[in-house]
Amino acid sequence: MNSRTLNRLVLVWLFIIVTAFSATVDAQTATRNEIQIPDIPGYLTLKCDFHIHTVFSDGNVWPPIRPQEAWTEGLDAIAITDHIEYQPHEDDIPTNFNRSHELAKPFGDAVSLPVIRGAEITRDEPPGHLNAIFLQDINPLDTENYMDAVRAAVEQGGLVFWNHPGWKQPNRKSVWYDTQEAMSQEGLLQGIEVVNGSTYYPNAHQWCLDKGLTMFGDSDIHNPIGMNYDFAAGEHRTMTLVFARDRSPEAIKQALQNQRTAIYWRNTLIGEEKYLRPIFDRSVTLRSTTVTLEGTDRSYVQITNHSDVPFELAAGGTVENIRAPSNVTLQAGKTVIMALSATSENLSGKRKVSLPFEVTNLLIAPNKGLPVPIDLNVRFVPEN
Amino acid sequence: MNSRTLNRLVLVWLFIIVTAFSATVDAQTATRNEIQIPDIPGYLTLKCDFHIHTVFSDGNVWPPIRPQEAWTEGLDAIAITDHIEYQPHEDDIPTNFNRSHELAKPFGDAVSLPVIRGAEITRDEPPGHLNAIFLQDINPLDTENYMDAVRAAVEQGGLVFWNHPGWKQPNRKSVWYDTQEAMSQEGLLQGIEVVNGSTYYPNAHQWCLDKGLTMFGDSDIHNPIGMNYDFAAGEHRTMTLVFARDRSPEAIKQALQNQRTAIYWRNTLIGEEKYLRPIFDRSVTLRSTTVTLEGTDRSYVQITNHSDVPFELAAGGTVENIRAPSNVTLQAGKTVIMALSATSENLSGKRKVSLPFEVTNLLIAPNKGLPVPIDLNVRFVPEN
Amino acid sequence: MNSRTLNRLVLVWLFIIVTAFSATVDAQTATRNEIQIPDIPGYLTLKCDFHIHTVFSDGNVWPPIRPQEAWTEGLDAIAITDHIEYQPHEDDIPTNFNRSHELAKPFGDAVSLPVIRGAEITRDEPPGHLNAIFLQDINPLDTENYMDAVRAAVEQGGLVFWNHPGWKQPNRKSVWYDTQEAMSQEGLLQGIEVVNGSTYYPNAHQWCLDKGLTMFGDSDIHNPIGMNYDFAAGEHRTMTLVFARDRSPEAIKQALQNQRTAIYWRNTLIGEEKYLRPIFDRSVTLRSTTVTLEGTDRSYVQITNHSDVPFELAAGGTVENIRAPSNVTLQAGKTVIMALSATSENLSGKRKVSLPFEVTNLLIAPNKGLPVPIDLNVRFVPEN
Amino acid sequence: MNSRTLNRLVLVWLFIIVTAFSATVDAQTATRNEIQIPDIPGYLTLKCDFHIHTVFSDGNVWPPIRPQEAWTEGLDAIAITDHIEYQPHEDDIPTNFNRSHELAKPFGDAVSLPVIRGAEITRDEPPGHLNAIFLQDINPLDTENYMDAVRAAVEQGGLVFWNHPGWKQPNRKSVWYDTQEAMSQEGLLQGIEVVNGSTYYPNAHQWCLDKGLTMFGDSDIHNPIGMNYDFAAGEHRTMTLVFARDRSPEAIKQALQNQRTAIYWRNTLIGEEKYLRPIFDRSVTLRSTTVTLEGTDRSYVQITNHSDVPFELAAGGTVENIRAPSNVTLQAGKTVIMALSATSENLSGKRKVSLPFEVTNLLIAPNKGLPVPIDLNVRFVPEN
Repeated sequence: MNSRTLNRLVLVWLFIIVTAFSATVDAQTATRNEIQIPDIPGYLTLKCDFHIHTVFSDGNVWPPIRPQEAWTEGLDAIAITDHIEYQPHEDDIPTNFNRSHELAKPFGDAVSLPVIRGAEITRDEPPGHLNAIFLQDINPLDTENYMDAVRAAVEQGGLVFWNHPGWKQPNRKSVWYDTQEAMSQEGLLQGIEVVNGSTYYPNAHQWCLDKGLTMFGDSDIHNPIGMNYDFAAGEHRTMTLVFARDRSPEAIKQALQNQRTAIYWRNTLIGEEKYLRPIFDRSVTLRSTTVTLEGTDRSYVQITNHSDVPFELAAGGTVENIRAPSNVTLQAGKTVIMALSATSENLSGKRKVSLPFEVTNLLIAPNKGLPVPIDLNVRFVPEN
Repeated sequence: MNSRTLNRLVLVWLFIIVTAFSATVDAQTATRNEIQIPDIPGYLTLKCDFHIHTVFSDGNVWPPIRPQEAWTEGLDAIAITDHIEYQPHEDDIPTNFNRSHELAKPFGDAVSLPVIRGAEITRDEPPGHLNAIFLQDINPLDTENYMDAVRAAVEQGGLVFWNHPGWKQPNRKSVWYDTQEAMSQEGLLQGIEVVNGSTYYPNAHQWCLDKGLTMFGDSDIHNPIGMNYDFAAGEHRTMTLVFARDRSPEAIKQALQNQRTAIYWRNTLIGEEKYLRPIFDRSVTLRSTTVTLEGTDRSYVQITNHSDVPFELAAGGTVENIRAPSNVTLQAGKTVIMALSATSENLSGKRKVSLPFEVTNLLIAPNKGLPVPIDLNVRFVPEN
Repeated sequence: MNSRTLNRLVLVWLFIIVTAFSATVDAQTATRNEIQIPDIPGYLTLKCDFHIHTVFSDGNVWPPIRPQEAWTEGLDAIAITDHIEYQPHEDDIPTNFNRSHELAKPFGDAVSLPVIRGAEITRDEPPGHLNAIFLQDINPLDTENYMDAVRAAVEQGGLVFWNHPGWKQPNRKSVWYDTQEAMSQEGLLQGIEVVNGSTYYPNAHQWCLDKGLTMFGDSDIHNPIGMNYDFAAGEHRTMTLVFARDRSPEAIKQALQNQRTAIYWRNTLIGEEKYLRPIFDRSVTLRSTTVTLEGTDRSYVQITNHSDVPFELAAGGTVENIRAPSNVTLQAGKTVIMALSATSENLSGKRKVSLPFEVTNLLIAPNKGLPVPIDLNVRFVPEN
Repeated sequence: MNSRTLNRLVLVWLFIIVTAFSATVDAQTATRNEIQIPDIPGYLTLKCDFHIHTVFSDGNVWPPIRPQEAWTEGLDAIAITDHIEYQPHEDDIPTNFNRSHELAKPFGDAVSLPVIRGAEITRDEPPGHLNAIFLQDINPLDTENYMDAVRAAVEQGGLVFWNHPGWKQPNRKSVWYDTQEAMSQEGLLQGIEVVNGSTYYPNAHQWCLDKGLTMFGDSDIHNPIGMNYDFAAGEHRTMTLVFARDRSPEAIKQALQNQRTAIYWRNTLIGEEKYLRPIFDRSVTLRSTTVTLEGTDRSYVQITNHSDVPFELAAGGTVENIRAPSNVTLQAGKTVIMALSATSENLSGKRKVSLPFEVTNLLIAPNKGLPVPIDLNVRFVPEN
């Protein structure tokens, strides 16, 4: 099948996209959800998934479905990463490592969504499962020794990361084996899946911080995506946020090589403070930073969260003379009110105060939320 | 792969069912929607889809996904009907006609959902596309002459019906060609798809009534089902309602051979009056059939619809002395009120009246709704 | 305003009902949700709310709104119970105790929903707040001494119950004061609100069981009901289930006098075992009670819950040789699968087993769920 | 009740706001929907409703409910406009014209939502019903002659507009009577409700354009707002968009005096082109304005609509050599794709084209949508 034929296939397929997503077939076009997580200074915030299967290993969908699903959900790039060593459908689909990417890519191209060639090196732990992405040709990775496969990936410009590191480990806790150390020492290990599907690995989170590895969060989807996520209920697939100069595969690769990522998992973002802080700051606005507290009456601060992430604020301490709530949820896309009052009815004067909140679902380290002081100009008026 | 291996595969898969339909993976089990369309006297009302594709022809999912989708949506039986002559994936998946059924069936068996072996005989119109179901072996249907394929199907106990009869015809209007007449004369044509996906063929509807053919309504699904139907918005796949003695494949086949079907398409049911009437009667209850009309004041009749089908009532005429609405929608699963009043304030006495409604979305013939007189005992009280 | 005028008002109002509940004003009629909690042998299960406010005390809606809200939500009867002693709107609405019931009742009558005359005797604890319902005239209850008010209520055939018994008590824990004991001894106290709005009082629950008092669960709604409950998210107001011979106020009163009630609060039912067991039994069906366990393969039991209450099953123990889940949620209106397997691959023979589940959200006493053994006929087939 | 008491009332009330909007009472705060309709150059786009009733005329809620509802829905200002001459609750609530505003205002103040004092001068047509807003004291408007009432309103700085102009007119068509002409001539008539509730008056729309009157769209709400609008289904109340310098009542009044308004009714915006065009332009972005058309293959333009209004595009003509869809709906908050192709496979070269679309639900005059040419740089590549 030459590229011309492939291109025609795209067109047929996208005609199907156009008509297929709705029962009102004739008039309806495909629609894409827009994930509301802001760009940060200097970078676009791209929504990516680097761990995806098709019928060419143990997945359950034909490859072109993957970019269609991704575009609809609001993703910006995906990697197809079928298993190399695990080919349970081989009686029906003879092994052909590059084929799933070849079939999926034109559908991504048609909607400007990069589909990256990848593969999953699939061994028992250690080293466990390793994803290699940005590959030219998967065949050289089909080797006896997994280190040879890793080296073959890196030699052709690929990036290698460790998948679901606690999988099949005692208590699902990830272990840093000699194999990981060896790969890391040799500069072969780019990163770790800190979140795979619905599972978060705090150990791996800390290792990424300590060892300068890139954090990945991926779906590892096998089924049609709608069987695993209830989009109507607001769920989304686990994904990697990539802070990239532009939307190209090259820019994405460069970001991954420089640890410019965060993870979007359920209602939680995981990443370095330097990435999560601008996301929070660009998502949240206060209607006014000036508050008048009269006697011990309540006054109301209105806070709007423009993002899709409901920020869970917890007070990290108290402020003298001011009663503030210990917990506030800034619901996604909504404005909420935070009630403040003076602790005594006879206070007077103006004061700058900083309410010491932490966002417990913006994790800058395991069990450590992002500090977000809320700065206000308070005017106390004594009760008369 | 022997049946023992297959059986293990089922278990693995169903473990995936158990965990896959929700993000709260650990605690969650698979859930099945229950379609609320009542049984009728003497028969169960089974929800079936006899036209479904997989990657083994031009579909986009691995076969076991199909019974999982069907069970979740509330269906009772499905047929897998991959194309025989159209095998666009054959470069990757060598042709193996019986294979998609073989892979799907164990997953249906595990949840007691019959998966029927079928195939789509795929020619230009005429004769167009023909589904053969209840097959033992699909290979004998791979013939030069389509009539040979049809005969091969019937010889092994299969039933053959004509798919999407207006497809590629002028104005999408189905045409009764000599080929259909010939098949029909020879007793080879069991029925027609009066609805395929989102398209209804009124001509075919009338032919079924005139020629004693079985009415089919099928999804003809190629994609993961969730890409084509928005279940969260209350949509459902087009399906055939089969009025069967029990849930077995044999009972389903017997029902199909005796025209005991109706079609559930969007909010409309299509079928013979003898099937649609008991469905309506068992779905709808009046809080009270006695109404007192005082002067010209309104009185309220409460009507509950226990089914999933919102019945659209239109008045087919008026009743002397009574003002009644010209249209009432009996919303699915709800109670609505219908306001009645006397046309004159000085009426008195008791009278039995029959409001002459028709359900415009229960089609007993093209453009002909089911008549549903609403019988009431009315007491008129003159205004004083 | 004579009754004739009132009746006209009803008609105008119900015209508003007819048009008001939807933006498609012209064609739309009012719709009533049907709460799916089954009747029990010998009794209807009526959904009632006996604690409701209007602008005539400290509520925020005009009285006729209350029966309209109740009918729409699927309730069968309500009591209007404005405060006697607390009249914060009296500058604008001069006190008129019977008036809110008088204004609301015709709107209930028009849709056959009884609106019961009630009042809230409003004192500090003890005795706290007491609701008196089934009153003829509220004026005699406006007395200096609360015991006089209670006696005045009972003398005219009213029933008196204690509202939100832990309100303003230490840790919101209800205390059985001498006042309650005195009322109870004198036969004046019919029951207690075991649930008020969103708050459950376990102490009160136990007292009802020990002292033979009637359990009440009420909304105590002040706002328009839609401001406090998110119906689109599946929420419902707290209500009392009344097991009554028919739908009349008299039958409801008789049921209350005989402790024939349960409480529907969030996803929980609270009541005596003799009422909760038939509700569960009539709500739940098993697809089949016969299970074949082959080797250690899983087998699937399908359980359908026809009610609106998601039953939370927890295993109260284990059964020899059978592996069963420790928790299963029977989701409302859905079918779920429960996976069973043999603990050893060489078992054989048939056995009756009883899985010892408890429904943790059907409370027959504080912290005590309803036991619901699931009886199955198990056939073991050894692996070969 | 002095202002001190009022202020306390606010606090109590807002505590109720804080806890009342959710069943998870303890942790939940009130949330405000943010209506996504962008500001325009030089002005904020404020969402306002200038026609609202309470129990102080024929409405069904206590006044403070109104600013709470409005804040929750995302409105920026409201007017309370109880009827002067129609006081059906007067037996229970003695007439007190300024009282509903007095009771509602503090609740708006607490969340910075202006509550404007208004009244509805209520006569048969002509002149029909007239709203007067920005009043100091309503009592002077209680006059025998309606012109005196109008003059009294204007004298104290009020603005007067004509409500639901087709109400009780033949075929609901509004008629420009001498009375309206007289008021207009005298400079007393500021504007007209082009939309009242669910009803649009095209005649009035044209009069506003021709006579330089301000367009109003109001809810005229009587019930609790949630009884008339299904917010969970995405409905919103009819409202006036006010293009104001800031959020103050003065800025709103100034905008109304200068015809700086539009109307948001169901999915439609009604207003002058100078206001609707920047709303559209700031709502919609194209992923790329450069398109390559190869042979007759389709190419896909991605269009994102950031607003809450689904724009319905209809082609107003064709463009030489390019096949484009005749209708595209830019769904609210989504990205859609528009498929383009060359009409002949041998075209070559670059060309600027302008697709001549009109937004049929942005009405710049009766039956006239906003023209929105989509400008693209097209590169034709001949098929090889």
